[in-house]
Amino acid sequence: MKQIEGGITAAKGFQAAGIEAAVKYQNRKDMALIYSEVPCAAAGTFTTNVVKAAPVLWDKKIVEESTYAQAVVVNSGIANACTGRQGMDCCQAEAQCAGECLGIPADSVLVASTGVIGMQLPLDRITEGIGKLAQAKSDTPEAGADAARAIMTTDTVPKEIAVTFEISGKTVTLGGMCKGSGMIHPNMCTMLGFLTTDAKISRQMLQKALREDVVDSFNMISVDGDTSTNDTLLILANGLAENEEIASEGAGYDTFREALHFVTTYLARKMAGDGEGATALFETKVIGAASKEDARILAKSVICSSLTKAAIFGHDANWGRILCALGYSGAQFDPENVDLYFRGGSSEIHIYGNGTACGYSEEEATKILSEPEVCVLVNMHMGEAEATAWGCDLSYDYVKINADYRS
Amino acid sequence: MKQIEGGITAAKGFQAAGIEAAVKYQNRKDMALIYSEVPCAAAGTFTTNVVKAAPVLWDKKIVEESTYAQAVVVNSGIANACTGRQGMDCCQAEAQCAGECLGIPADSVLVASTGVIGMQLPLDRITEGIGKLAQAKSDTPEAGADAARAIMTTDTVPKEIAVTFEISGKTVTLGGMCKGSGMIHPNMCTMLGFLTTDAKISRQMLQKALREDVVDSFNMISVDGDTSTNDTLLILANGLAENEEIASEGAGYDTFREALHFVTTYLARKMAGDGEGATALFETKVIGAASKEDARILAKSVICSSLTKAAIFGHDANWGRILCALGYSGAQFDPENVDLYFRGGSSEIHIYGNGTACGYSEEEATKILSEPEVCVLVNMHMGEAEATAWGCDLSYDYVKINADYRS
Repeated sequence: MKQIEGGITAAKGFQAAGIEAAVKYQNRKDMALIYSEVPCAAAGTFTTNVVKAAPVLWDKKIVEESTYAQAVVVNSGIANACTGRQGMDCCQAEAQCAGECLGIPADSVLVASTGVIGMQLPLDRITEGIGKLAQAKSDTPEAGADAARAIMTTDTVPKEIAVTFEISGKTVTLGGMCKGSGMIHPNMCTMLGFLTTDAKISRQMLQKALREDVVDSFNMISVDGDTSTNDTLLILANGLAENEEIASEGAGYDTFREALHFVTTYLARKMAGDGEGATALFETKVIGAASKEDARILAKSVICSSLTKAAIFGHDANWGRILCALGYSGAQFDPENVDLYFRGGSSEIHIYGNGTACGYSEEEATKILSEPEVCVLVNMHMGEAEATAWGCDLSYDYVKINADYRS
Repeated sequence: MKQIEGGITAAKGFQAAGIEAAVKYQNRKDMALIYSEVPCAAAGTFTTNVVKAAPVLWDKKIVEESTYAQAVVVNSGIANACTGRQGMDCCQAEAQCAGECLGIPADSVLVASTGVIGMQLPLDRITEGIGKLAQAKSDTPEAGADAARAIMTTDTVPKEIAVTFEISGKTVTLGGMCKGSGMIHPNMCTMLGFLTTDAKISRQMLQKALREDVVDSFNMISVDGDTSTNDTLLILANGLAENEEIASEGAGYDTFREALHFVTTYLARKMAGDGEGATALFETKVIGAASKEDARILAKSVICSSLTKAAIFGHDANWGRILCALGYSGAQFDPENVDLYFRGGSSEIHIYGNGTACGYSEEEATKILSEPEVCVLVNMHMGEAEATAWGCDLSYDYVKINADYRS
């Protein structure tokens, strides 16, 4: 497997575009298109929030009932959530419009929205935007980058990646993009993530791969503990790599899963590190846990702790808060048997063991906690299971961004 | 029932003190004593965190195994959590010292600590402080107020209350004090809360009353979602009111429960409203829920949402975040059937119904959200159950306080 330049247009036969439609934001790209020249197997995972945005309901239906998908239309600025019947009608109209502009059936068009909840989409500007997107679409890396930029809300940087790998002697490409960066606490899915691949893979195996993957990638990140109404992760596979079709488990599936995990983990880390107001990526790796489930719960509890996140922002080695967060996670363990380490840059220090503080240097700890990527390593000494979760620190800017998001 | 002046010294036979012991803080009161002139029935609820501070382990043993208790020694500044064997020895030494100074058995002395995790208590200053406390103790309201001040950490105001009520023709008094204000997300208990009463009540009924009560009082508040290692709620009942002993359910028990709930809810609200960095008390009342459990889960999910809390701080009527928090709470419901109202001062406005925004005035909403007590009322239209939860807004000061707590 090799990481290459590009994102959602890296795989054969995929085009994209990002344009200004003034849905809500002014003077910036706010609509994106992903288009495959041929029909694709599609799979998706969606928010577990009971309050599901209209585009989530639309996409679930397409992924579950349509035989294929061929395009995704995305807008930022307005989430089309809590918008009732009018919101659903808008999804239908978007898909209809995109279908006509692209010459494909409306039920092969997926839609996604992100932004403020409760406002209706301005359908005239959306359909005008779709016309522009259809005109602008291209298979260049620049077109993919435009799309990655258009889906951003409070993100400070676009997030995209592409890799190539071999299956049955054929070179397969997988690319992706995603956006954060608030209301990020995915549960069975993530905010908005889009993956494209030219792998030949059955819809069933594609859905299986995605479902298995998110548990250890997007579901292991959190910015603020708020599971969005719009979380959507979609993958389109158009088969143009002409590999032997992946229709069951085996070497081809494993290779694909490995590449998928590389891409999703890369994007998940980027999303966490670019969380609203974040100054650092905050990683917690739990090893030696009694079960995989325990490892996940423990790691996620630490990266979700507001007190721990504020301490990381302050570069303060207040490790008691980490022990506290492990303790209320729901997993059972003996605090006397836990070892805790801080890792940052090329340093690692032992902070806690045998039930009390180790004799570490506060100066060294502060230095580690000042790195742009801070890692807490926890050894539970109870078994072989491990898991990693990613979050970010809690800063003044998180409050600033969210105290005044709508104006 | 009548609210009266005072706190933990209001009930007959209770004395208290608050003094400067320089445990960690300088130039402020940091140790408190509660003392009953006669032995008391004692009950307690404690943190469900797997990582339990030494004083929690000590008190659990006393409450479960000792026939009575007669004093509580509290310090702020250092939590005596994650302190291993040395931490437990310190509790033993504290109780021993207090027992000698007060002329009571060591196993009738409860201890509590709050502050930074991981540091050892300076036993010499603690025992010196206990000597001073034993000297200073008094049954005056001022002595109760001194104690309420001594147990504060990042609290901005002391929190105390007292009420009187009648049982079997006798006037009974119940008083209490508590402290917050960070790492507040009690689960089966609260940070530090101390209640004293001269009611005559059996240990079993006292424990039952406390256990039943916390579910709807202290367990319904959250400042930051972090369940502490030190949460402790203790109640001492010395029987000096000479009412007919409450030894089973009935009118006397109901009256006591009512008074207890008034006191605990008062203290819980005070704790939430004085959460770290808070500028407002944020109340969420859920009515018409399918079950009591659902009502609690829904109300608590809203007051725990970082995004909603930041919006309250910004006086921004970003109600979509409230719908979102209800949606990921775990309770099942149909978003189309929910009604949402904002309440503040003497105003109430209908914000959301029939699946979309109501035509409310943003100006009026902002005015309501600028009140010192903001209430969200949610009607689920599914049944008769209701619950109320209390939190606070999320401000710059929360980050400031917690990015640099230890220095």
